Order: sequence, then C-alpha cells, then structure tokens
Amino acid sequence: MARIVQKFGGTSVADLDRIRNVAQRVKTEFDASHEVAVVVSAMSGTTNQLVEWATTVGAVHDAREYDAIVATGEQVTVGLLAIALKNLGVDARSWLGWQVPIHTDDVHGAARIDHIDAASIDQRLSQGQVAVIAGFQGIGPDHRITTLGRGGSDTSAVALAAALKADRCDIYTDVDGVYTTDPRIAPKARKLDRITFEEMLEMASSGAKVLQTRSVAMAMRHNVNLQVRSSFTDAPGTFVVNEDSIMEQETISGIAYSPDEAKITIVGLPDRPGVAAAVFGQLADHHVNVDMIVQTASSTTKTTDISFSVGRLDNEKAVEIIEKNQDSLEFETIVADPNVSKISVVGTAMRSQPGVAKTMFETLAAKGVNIQVISTSEIKISVLIDAEYTELAVRSLHTAFGLDEG
Amino acid sequence: MARIVQKFGGTSVADLDRIRNVAQRVKTEFDASHEVAVVVSAMSGTTNQLVEWATTVGAVHDAREYDAIVATGEQVTVGLLAIALKNLGVDARSWLGWQVPIHTDDVHGAARIDHIDAASIDQRLSQGQVAVIAGFQGIGPDHRITTLGRGGSDTSAVALAAALKADRCDIYTDVDGVYTTDPRIAPKARKLDRITFEEMLEMASSGAKVLQTRSVAMAMRHNVNLQVRSSFTDAPGTFVVNEDSIMEQETISGIAYSPDEAKITIVGLPDRPGVAAAVFGQLADHHVNVDMIVQTASSTTKTTDISFSVGRLDNEKAVEIIEKNQDSLEFETIVADPNVSKISVVGTAMRSQPGVAKTMFETLAAKGVNIQVISTSEIKISVLIDAEYTELAVRSLHTAFGLDEG
Repeated sequence: MARIVQKFGGTSVADLDRIRNVAQRVKTEFDASHEVAVVVSAMSGTTNQLVEWATTVGAVHDAREYDAIVATGEQVTVGLLAIALKNLGVDARSWLGWQVPIHTDDVHGAARIDHIDAASIDQRLSQGQVAVIAGFQGIGPDHRITTLGRGGSDTSAVALAAALKADRCDIYTDVDGVYTTDPRIAPKARKLDRITFEEMLEMASSGAKVLQTRSVAMAMRHNVNLQVRSSFTDAPGTFVVNEDSIMEQETISGIAYSPDEAKITIVGLPDRPGVAAAVFGQLADHHVNVDMIVQTASSTTKTTDISFSVGRLDNEKAVEIIEKNQDSLEFETIVADPNVSKISVVGTAMRSQPGVAKTMFETLAAKGVNIQVISTSEIKISVLIDAEYTELAVRSLHTAFGLDEG
Repeated sequence: MARIVQKFGGTSVADLDRIRNVAQRVKTEFDASHEVAVVVSAMSGTTNQLVEWATTVGAVHDAREYDAIVATGEQVTVGLLAIALKNLGVDARSWLGWQVPIHTDDVHGAARIDHIDAASIDQRLSQGQVAVIAGFQGIGPDHRITTLGRGGSDTSAVALAAALKADRCDIYTDVDGVYTTDPRIAPKARKLDRITFEEMLEMASSGAKVLQTRSVAMAMRHNVNLQVRSSFTDAPGTFVVNEDSIMEQETISGIAYSPDEAKITIVGLPDRPGVAAAVFGQLADHHVNVDMIVQTASSTTKTTDISFSVGRLDNEKAVEIIEKNQDSLEFETIVADPNVSKISVVGTAMRSQPGVAKTMFETLAAKGVNIQVISTSEIKISVLIDAEYTELAVRSLHTAFGLDEG
C-alpha cells in the first residue's frame, strides 16, 4: 500500500466526460489499495472567463476579490470529481483551500504556501476516503481566500505530497512525460524515463511548460517523488528524481526553448559602480522580469553597454522605463529587438564532461545562426538567437547531442 | 443615518453592466451616509449551469458536493460587486457564508439558518465599509458549505437584517413592487404601497413569486421592515409592514394565482379513522408536497372521497404512489386532473368584513367558472378551477373586489 497524490490540470477536467475519466484513474489506484489524494485545477477556459470578469468590471484592481472570484473554478471541479467518484462506488469528499487548511502568506494573486495542516486529510486517507483537493488556492492570515498564481495547482500538489508524506506525486497532463525537446518542432524527440530535479528546474525555467518551476523547486527541497504522465494514456511517464538515483547519465538531457523573448541593449552607459543596480532596480520596481544579462565595458571610452532579455510582452514597457530615466542613467541610446528566442541545452553531466559549449556553438555556427547573448549555469547553457532560427536551432542541437530517437 | 440591507437577485446582477448598475444603487445609499450591507444572488443562468453539471456528472446525488458547487455562483458575484464598488470610490469587501459566518443546520441543499455571528460585519459597517454578502449560502456544523435552497437569498437578506438590527431591508427585483395581481394577465393591476406580513405570506404561498414565503415568515417573526422595489427604476416599491401600522385597510389586498396545479381524487375509501393519515403519510414519505385537501363522506355507503392538489410536476408520481398502495388503502378508483389552477383572494380585513366568499363565488359563477375545491384561512380564500379559466377568473375577481386602477 502506498500513499499517492495525483494532480490533474485544466484540460484533464475540461468537461464532465473527462472528469469521469479522471475518476476512473483515481479508482484504479484506490482499487490497488492505495491511499489517494487528488488535486485538481479549474475546468479549462473557466479561469480565463473569471479573470476577464474580475479585470473588466472595473479598472481598479482588488487582489482579494480577484482571488475570491477565480478560486471558484477549482471549487466547482472538486465537487464534480467527488460526485463522479461516489458514482463509481469510491468514498470521496472535496476539500477547499480554507477547509484543509492550506495556509499562505497574504500576497493575493501570487501567494506562497506557508504551511499545511494536513491532519484532517491524513486521518480520512487512513480511513479509506479519497481526498479531492482544490489546487491553486489557500487561506491567508486575514481569513480570506488566496490564490497561488497561474500554474499554482502543481505547487499545491507537491506541497500536499510533502505534508502528507506521500510516496509519490503524479502530475497528470496532456503530454505523456518530459521530452528531450518539444516534439512539435523536433519529431525525433524522445520521452525521458527519468530526469533530475536540477535538470527539470532548468528545463522548466528555460521554456518547457510541462511543470511549473516553483513546484519542481519545492519537490526538490522536500524530496517528493514526482512523476509527469498523461491523463489520456496508460503509458508510464517521466520520473523526476534525485541525481544520485540515476546510475548512468547522458551528457545532455534536453533542449529547451523560449520563443517569445526580447533583447534590449543600453548603449554608452557611464562605466562606474551602481549603474547596473540603477537600471535593474527601475525595472524590478515596475515588475519587469529580466532573464539574461550581459555587460561589456570599453576601456577606451569609459562607457559600458548592457544587454538583457525580457519576455516579449514586457519589451515596450521596459524600453519606456529606461527611456524615462535617460537623464539620470546618462546613457547614449537604447536598442530593442523584440524578435529573439532563447535556446538552452540542459544536463547534469555537463559538469563533468567538457566540450558541451563547443559542440553547441559549432552546431549553431554551421547552420549560420548568430549567437547574440550567452549565459551559463553549472548544468545549462543558454543563448539568445534571432527568433526565425528557433526550430532549426532546436532540431540541430537535438541531433548534435545524440538525442534523436532510433 | 440608517442601517440598510439591500438584496439584489440574479437578473439584477446578470452581467457586468448590471453589476455596475447595482454598485451605483449601493453608492446612492452610501453617499446618503447610510450603513449598507448588500446581499446578492448568482448571475442569472449561472446557478442552472452549475446545477446541471452537479446533477449530470453522476446519478448518485451528494448534497454536500452539490452545495460546494452551486455556492460558487454567489461567490463570483460578491467579488465582482465589491470590485465595482471600489471603482466608484466606495470601500467594500465581500463576505462568503463561511466568513460571516452564517451558521446553518446540516440539511444540505435546503439548510435553515441557525444563527448569524454578525459582529465582524457590524464593526466594518460602523467603520464605513460596505459589506457585500453572498446570499443563499452558509456553513454547516461539519464546517462544510451549505445552501438554503432556491430563492434562499431573500432569506439570507432578512436574516442578516435581523442580525444586524437594520432599519430596513430592501429587496430589489425585476418588478417594482407587490401588485394587486399579476399585471401580465390583469393590465389594471395596481402596485400596492403597503401590504401586511400576513397578506404577503398568503400571496407568496398562493403563487405570487415576488418574495419567497420563508423570507416573509422570517421578517414577520423578527419584525424586519421589508421593501420590495425595482432594480431598474427609482420608483418607491411596496413596504411589507405590521398590520397595526396600516390605518385604513382595504378588504382585499390582492388576487394570487398558481396556474400549474393538479387535482387528484381518491374515490371510495373506507370511511374510518386513519385513512387520511395513510394516504398523506405515503405522499410525504416520497416528498410530494400536498396543498389543498377536502374530504366528503357518504353516510349510506360508508365510504369517503378525498380530493387534494399537488404541483403539476408531482401529479404522475403522486398517482403512482397511491395506486401502488391500492390493496392496503382499499379504495375503488383514483381520478387525476392535471389541468387545474388555484385562485386566491387575500386580505387581512376579510376577518371583520363578511361577504368576501359570497362575492368570490358569485363572480366566478357569473362567468361560468366551476369551483372544484375550496379552502379558506382567516385572511384568504382559495379555490381550484379548470386551468383554462385562470386569466378570466383573476381579471373578474380583480374588478369585483374594486382593485382595478383608476
């Protein structure tokens, strides 16, 4: 007997038929004498409708009310799934964030889980009742509903798996696992049987959408056994595990890409301490998320250029913020390219195997792809390139690193 | 300065424009330095969708999950209205049933309010914050969401008005008050300025849909000043008041009708004690709501006939239940007429003014309307007639009792 947390996303519960299908999957584990807690998202489309209402009823935003409104999406799904389970003869009940309770901080709209009082659910699981828990939501210190932000249901599932000391946390999604790269642009992509937490983290933050970065980080911290698998097939998925549990490691686990980036270069900044802080402080104050940063100094002109990347949607806003501060920042000019993409090669074994960067740069050069910015971590190399070359670059690197199937 | 509870139904909050309109109405009272608590229903149509999902996802019903699902309708509206109010510069926050809290019994789907801890809202009102409260919902003894059943938002509003010691409880609806009868079938119907609780109670239970019977009974018990008024015009509505606050009372306040009734007659029952109990016990066990009952005994045959009315939707079910018990009940035959309607004349002054029944019966006879069943209370006379004559009967009685406008 094991204790399992299952998480189903919006497309897996998109209509009543799919909810019944999810109930069957829960029943399969339940019938195998496992204790099962299920975390579900809102029916796909529902959250968008609720967000639209909450943001168009008035221009002034109220994050507390926003949370009360959007949290209803998951409230509906947990009730429906609990009914579907009862109809299969499985004892089940729904739990809302405030009923568990899942305590969060008070940052409405993007709350962080503080702690979970899992005692009630723990007891019910031991008694053979399935717990159907609303993902994405919790209760704040002021006794009001909070939400964890987009994709927060993955985080709910991992946090519950940790609090319930679950043997496994299965994330059901519309793909059947983590791939060496996106199969839509590289048909030879292979599904990975295993991937390490660190690699998954780099893949997630480099554009692979299969798991939310936050949930992977939490799983790593609490050593939760994660599995990514399909809601629609019975095939085994991809296990996300500790590095030491993988005996033989390939050099590169995957090629990730993020196609919607913009590159901004500030030319001719004074080369003195505090310049970078001034630039990025301004952007942070306006909630612009900056990813890659490179700085080059010229010893002759005593000026420096700073290039950085932002999500394409933030491009204009970022340029505007910097331009407004031209007087205090004292730069010459600013150049923005809203059509770049980020390509990353990820692999834990990169640490011990030199030559990854060389292979990457040579492969891109051979296809005539110009590298604009480079940034590296211990287990990842990312480059910015012209967005036109995205698919070509991904496929070429996939082949070059021996990831192609067959 | 007064303390006012306002209640807006589903059609008044059907879309974002109407929600903004409601916010304006709240602001009007707020700007007049009143303390305002607003109770709202779900956007019209929402509850039906939620009920459909909850009842079709599986055949086995679970009233607890049903309540968690349908309560989301009001949760969305309170959030949206609170945002709309903030956008008008009015400080406001939403309150869900479990946050107030509104404590109910554990009869999920049709819960009764046990008591309301109004202290938190009371304090916020005193501080000048508008309270936007989800109608129709509460929290049960097991810490789960309950709903009060259809139309329960009126009851929520009245209960809150009592708990908050409000000076007035305004029920906003899509009609502009209580009429002497339904203006759709009697164009000469007049809006009443005032009506007594007792009359409103009889009107409501006789088919006038403007207020839920339960909420009127509660208002009478707690002496809550009720006003029924329009969400769409500024005209004053109808006040529902104590009898002693109306100086000059007309004989008849209104003609109510309920067009979807069925009459069932059980012929040739043994004339002995316990027969009625046996018949109506069976029906009650199967949740068939019986309205009017008449029994006639024949001294020669030692048998009796019982006629009673049920809602038309319950007709077949009721007949089936009685037929199944033909052996134990020992009746001869059963006759059902699924096309009758109930017409009621209502008025407190009826008590002291004889001749109301005479006028009623003569008026109907003059139009050739056959009376099938009669039942009376202190302030009401109801008859069952062939449904074909409904409109004719209502208009004739409206004229006969001097209720026509002008």
